Amino acid sequence: MAPHPLTALSRDEFKTARNIVTNLYGSDSTLFYRAIFLQEPKKADLVPFLQAEHAGTITDETPRPPRLARLQYDVIRTTSKLPEHTQSVVDLGSGKEVDRTVAGPHSHPGYLPDEFALFQDACVASQLFKDAMAEFSLPEGFAVTIDPWPYGGPDEGEDIPSYMQGLVFARDASKENLDSNHYGYPIPIIPVMDFTTKEIVRIDRLATGGAGDGLNPRPPSSKPRSLFVDARSSASSEYVPELLDMPQRADLKPINITQPEGASFRVHADNLVEWQKWRFRLGFTPREGAVLHDLCYDGRPVLYRLSYSELTVPYGDPRPPFQRKQAFDLGDGGFGRVANNLELGCDCLGAIHYLDALLADTEGNPTIAKAVACLHEQDNGIGWKHTNFRTNRAIVTRLREFVVQCVVTLANYEYVFAYKLDTAGGITLETRATGVMSVVAVDEGAAASDYGAVVAPGVLAQNHQHIFAVRIDPAVDSYEAGATRVVVEESVPVPLDVSTNPHGNYYEVRKSVVERARWIDAEPRLNRVVKFENTTKRNAVSGRNVGFKLTPSASQLLLADERSQVSRRAKFARHHVWVTGYRDDELWAAGEFTNQSIEEVGGVWDMVARGDWFGDGGGDGGHGENGETGDGGEGKRSSPVVWSVFGLTHNPRVEDWPVMPVEIHHMNIRPADFFTANPALDVPSTRNTASVIVPCCGRQKTDSGNGADGDGGDEQRVQRAALTHLQGPGPDIPAREAGAHVEGRG
Amino acid sequence: MAPHPLTALSRDEFKTARNIVTNLYGSDSTLFYRAIFLQEPKKADLVPFLQAEHAGTITDETPRPPRLARLQYDVIRTTSKLPEHTQSVVDLGSGKEVDRTVAGPHSHPGYLPDEFALFQDACVASQLFKDAMAEFSLPEGFAVTIDPWPYGGPDEGEDIPSYMQGLVFARDASKENLDSNHYGYPIPIIPVMDFTTKEIVRIDRLATGGAGDGLNPRPPSSKPRSLFVDARSSASSEYVPELLDMPQRADLKPINITQPEGASFRVHADNLVEWQKWRFRLGFTPREGAVLHDLCYDGRPVLYRLSYSELTVPYGDPRPPFQRKQAFDLGDGGFGRVANNLELGCDCLGAIHYLDALLADTEGNPTIAKAVACLHEQDNGIGWKHTNFRTNRAIVTRLREFVVQCVVTLANYEYVFAYKLDTAGGITLETRATGVMSVVAVDEGAAASDYGAVVAPGVLAQNHQHIFAVRIDPAVDSYEAGATRVVVEESVPVPLDVSTNPHGNYYEVRKSVVERARWIDAEPRLNRVVKFENTTKRNAVSGRNVGFKLTPSASQLLLADERSQVSRRAKFARHHVWVTGYRDDELWAAGEFTNQSIEEVGGVWDMVARGDWFGDGGGDGGHGENGETGDGGEGKRSSPVVWSVFGLTHNPRVEDWPVMPVEIHHMNIRPADFFTANPALDVPSTRNTASVIVPCCGRQKTDSGNGADGDGGDEQRVQRAALTHLQGPGPDIPAREAGAHVEGRG
Repeated sequence: MAPHPLTALSRDEFKTARNIVTNLYGSDSTLFYRAIFLQEPKKADLVPFLQAEHAGTITDETPRPPRLARLQYDVIRTTSKLPEHTQSVVDLGSGKEVDRTVAGPHSHPGYLPDEFALFQDACVASQLFKDAMAEFSLPEGFAVTIDPWPYGGPDEGEDIPSYMQGLVFARDASKENLDSNHYGYPIPIIPVMDFTTKEIVRIDRLATGGAGDGLNPRPPSSKPRSLFVDARSSASSEYVPELLDMPQRADLKPINITQPEGASFRVHADNLVEWQKWRFRLGFTPREGAVLHDLCYDGRPVLYRLSYSELTVPYGDPRPPFQRKQAFDLGDGGFGRVANNLELGCDCLGAIHYLDALLADTEGNPTIAKAVACLHEQDNGIGWKHTNFRTNRAIVTRLREFVVQCVVTLANYEYVFAYKLDTAGGITLETRATGVMSVVAVDEGAAASDYGAVVAPGVLAQNHQHIFAVRIDPAVDSYEAGATRVVVEESVPVPLDVSTNPHGNYYEVRKSVVERARWIDAEPRLNRVVKFENTTKRNAVSGRNVGFKLTPSASQLLLADERSQVSRRAKFARHHVWVTGYRDDELWAAGEFTNQSIEEVGGVWDMVARGDWFGDGGGDGGHGENGETGDGGEGKRSSPVVWSVFGLTHNPRVEDWPVMPVEIHHMNIRPADFFTANPALDVPSTRNTASVIVPCCGRQKTDSGNGADGDGGDEQRVQRAALTHLQGPGPDIPAREAGAHVEGRG
Repeated sequence: MAPHPLTALSRDEFKTARNIVTNLYGSDSTLFYRAIFLQEPKKADLVPFLQAEHAGTITDETPRPPRLARLQYDVIRTTSKLPEHTQSVVDLGSGKEVDRTVAGPHSHPGYLPDEFALFQDACVASQLFKDAMAEFSLPEGFAVTIDPWPYGGPDEGEDIPSYMQGLVFARDASKENLDSNHYGYPIPIIPVMDFTTKEIVRIDRLATGGAGDGLNPRPPSSKPRSLFVDARSSASSEYVPELLDMPQRADLKPINITQPEGASFRVHADNLVEWQKWRFRLGFTPREGAVLHDLCYDGRPVLYRLSYSELTVPYGDPRPPFQRKQAFDLGDGGFGRVANNLELGCDCLGAIHYLDALLADTEGNPTIAKAVACLHEQDNGIGWKHTNFRTNRAIVTRLREFVVQCVVTLANYEYVFAYKLDTAGGITLETRATGVMSVVAVDEGAAASDYGAVVAPGVLAQNHQHIFAVRIDPAVDSYEAGATRVVVEESVPVPLDVSTNPHGNYYEVRKSVVERARWIDAEPRLNRVVKFENTTKRNAVSGRNVGFKLTPSASQLLLADERSQVSRRAKFARHHVWVTGYRDDELWAAGEFTNQSIEEVGGVWDMVARGDWFGDGGGDGGHGENGETGDGGEGKRSSPVVWSVFGLTHNPRVEDWPVMPVEIHHMNIRPADFFTANPALDVPSTRNTASVIVPCCGRQKTDSGNGADGDGGDEQRVQRAALTHLQGPGPDIPAREAGAHVEGRG
């Protein structure tokens, strides 16, 4: 049987794809591979297959989309020092290249870790760098460590090839521990490398003053400036256990999470995952990390594809060149490339399945990235409960969640992201920010800074934002074209009015269909939600269109001035929701090439500007919000794709140093009249028998908790008194005694 | 040793208090007890004791606040049918009553369950009720069941004594199951009882139309109206397992949460709880349920008191008399009175401690309410993580939480509320809404309603809101008077400017001290946070005032017209944050008497209007937001108390029927420069050894997951490769080779 069209490339397919492309080039060219991965089928080709799959009618004769691979590589010709950033799509069946594009000179792919590794060598070889370092004196026993960074956006009018910048730190090598935290010793220079020549072309000096000290670096001094004077006497910036200047907690007893009867989920071949009534294909790409495809509940489609699309991290320190501290962590790096190899009992507790992935090395060979995602179930507290106060009988069920979790490391910083599905039909994207904040030097003893927090002597953690975009391709209860529409729903106050709202308690639930591509901002004052609805199928009980709803988080959007390059590079970060017309391969909120971009190109802004429309066309959406639409020149009738943007404004606290406790964000997608009752109604109210009582005051036994006298039994129903201290009302009243007429059985 | 001043009344104290009061009245009076509980000491009396306690200097000679009890009761005199709602405070040491107040005729205490129980009998005895019921014909085998409700706000100009209303339902008694769900069969009348006479005085007929059918009930018909015609043939509204019309899920395998070495928390005498570096006294009151007192971290005070203060639930259906569906679930009922008796393995999993409480019966006798709160630890995923990409070493710690959870039942509806403390110094109030929605009748086959969702045939779940107020009494690092101030912090965009913001990436973090009592609204566009800061103590690293921060949830506020009674009764629900001047015993956001109130009296609105000031007085706060202040007539210099208001606008989905999956809200209070580093830095990165691998595709073993080859060991450090597929940069550069000067050790 052929692989499912959404199955990741096998090792053989990977090699085949690589060989097809390599053989297209002659000996005058060297290929530097960046990525090789499945080219997902066009939606129009895949949908008929998925429909047949869900109908159970797949046979060997079922037409399949061509099996394709996408290869991203640089062609380095002997005749030019400028690499050609190239993408090929090859048909693994025919062995032919079916598409090739070469990026323009101002389109820079994200850097690979291998490329970052060159930066330090270039510094060592650079007299410019040594001259700059000669301006400083470091304590004995310190070494220099450099974190390469994307260059950010070039300055206005700066016409440059590929550049790379580096944040420079020292490490206290006298501790003889390679994990001693170098971020605690920032050195106030930024070397800049021309990546085409691999030479350091400039050293930017950094301002290090406190409040009121202005934007410019201090003038050069005739005498080397002593850094880290208080380094060894002051507070530690270490985080590895053996270097902490305090004992670790000894009183945190283990919590074990076990599934003695096994897990409730199954992972099948072709990365098909089934858990409770959910079913999806788990993908993994170099840029996005984990991706959910063909997400269905009880056989009904919900989402065609769900993925993280982009993340920009701009810093708010106005002192040049810190405006160039603006990372695009998917476009400049790639979540999949930097996904952690997860550890049992550390990153995920319980009964865990791990996903491995194949990534390309720079020669195009498949290398295994082990355990880049973990899959498991977890308990999330009470799922639903009701106590009948007349009978004192309580029914309690738990909320069970299924989690697909990845952790990514971007130099100093970490993100934990998880797709969660639950027993009540809910989908949650949980994003956690942790790791070491990006810091720069500040004069020891300087007054507090306006641009961040002094988190250790000489260390300034600058104010910054993290703004994420999640791409949601909805398919509500159907994969038919035109079957899904987007509706904005608001709860709107209504003035007191003698005939329509005589007591002033009424509020109106107002809906409007999104008819053209546009943006929408979160508005909690109006409880604004964005619904994905089937255009024709109605809920048998409520009569409403079956749907799911997204509640956009009212998080702060991009603060940078709209005229700034920071803002122009990340226009997606100006609004909370974008609704755009579907095109195959359009996955990137800030466009495909974010590295060193001067403006967002091909991102959601441009997609909206095309003027696509949904439905039968023409309408202006009729909604009060002024999401802009373009001139419609390129627009066409299309299916809506929804992009959800949310962010964290991170003005550092000392508590975020030296490693930051997770900051957690939840994005919720919930069924809205998709089902005809609570989908968790059939979750058993089974008592868990592994729980135990903790007595008070060292007693061995407690009279608290009527659970203490539990009579065991695996499947015991929870039928005991839940409000035993209350007096319920008397029994109910037979209808005739209550005065009502009574009809015979109809 | 005497009990701690915050210890709940003992059974003996409870009886003593009751006897003191009972003996004050003669034989012409009967006392109907509503509540007896500890009268918390005045803050000025308690603080010196807490300071001595924290200093470890308590002896038998340490002055203690007088031990007081508060008793709430009605005096029913033979000479009057109107009960006198009375409160006494008695001194348990002297045996004397030290305070007594009698409520005015328009101040109605919340109803007790015993009082609600009278309602059904009054209906059975009422010809009015029978006449109304005679307008309907019910299917054979149905009984009538009535949910008593508070009357809500009286109509404009309606001058009435204590009233009570009832929502009337039928129950399919033919199922011979008392837990068959009567909420699935609403009958469109509301009987109203005069509570002073215990007589039904009026039957309100309810409109039952769909969209476009107007606000008024249908005119009386000559022929009884058949209800629940489709009752037995249509979708079930049952939720108890044996009545479900579908099988329960059989494939949800147990998740066991165990602590083989025991729990990490200790509960001492006098309800002192210690967990990790947190320590607090756990209180429990009839109105609030669980309350945290004297919450400290590592011996440093954080909050003097933390409690739920009020919850109002107004319904948005404009058809009279539905404007009177507005419950105040603390003031009209009381979370403590209706707290569920929790069950091990159902409401809380793991190693659990249960709290019992004493509540008064109507004769003033103590009755035990068992297991009204559960205390336990839980794992909440990754707490912090960093991978050094040079060495590939990852350090991962878990986020551990300590939870105090209560579940309350208010007739049809449930709330789960939890105070959570965590290993990173965070405090979270988690509120879950579940239970059965309050529904009314709608014509079977009616067009969709503008006022809610048809969730079953003939059942309309009306649009409504739940708006909560939490009271936070901060004491940041000190109990000294004037030690804590409130600061509003915003992140504000700054226009591009050649001299101060040359690249447009800067944003300003703007702070303003709250100098007078006022309200503040959430503003995520400005990332507005409310900080509690010590006025003088500064963080040794950052130099900033030590503090905690509250991020107000930008949830929708009360939608009712401000002129409406619904809004006037709940002015607290008009803004997200209120900062008021501390007064002993001021605990109620909507005032003490909410039941049948016509306006919020003595709530946060009035507290702000007093014009209290903080700090040295006089200033206007200097903040852009126009929180109103009063004329200062009553105002005095005071300590700030902060009230956090958040809500859920609940426009029902069919999925919320017949029991609603939890809707979860989190309110976060986080340290902000309170500590000199991440407080979870000393949490060990211990590998949990109980976790196991789930293989793919039925295989017994997987090559995925480098955790699979774990070498065991209880305290094994997590030092393995976490990014093994990446090539890190080369080693670092000795400082001299990098060009820097090197100084000898200082």
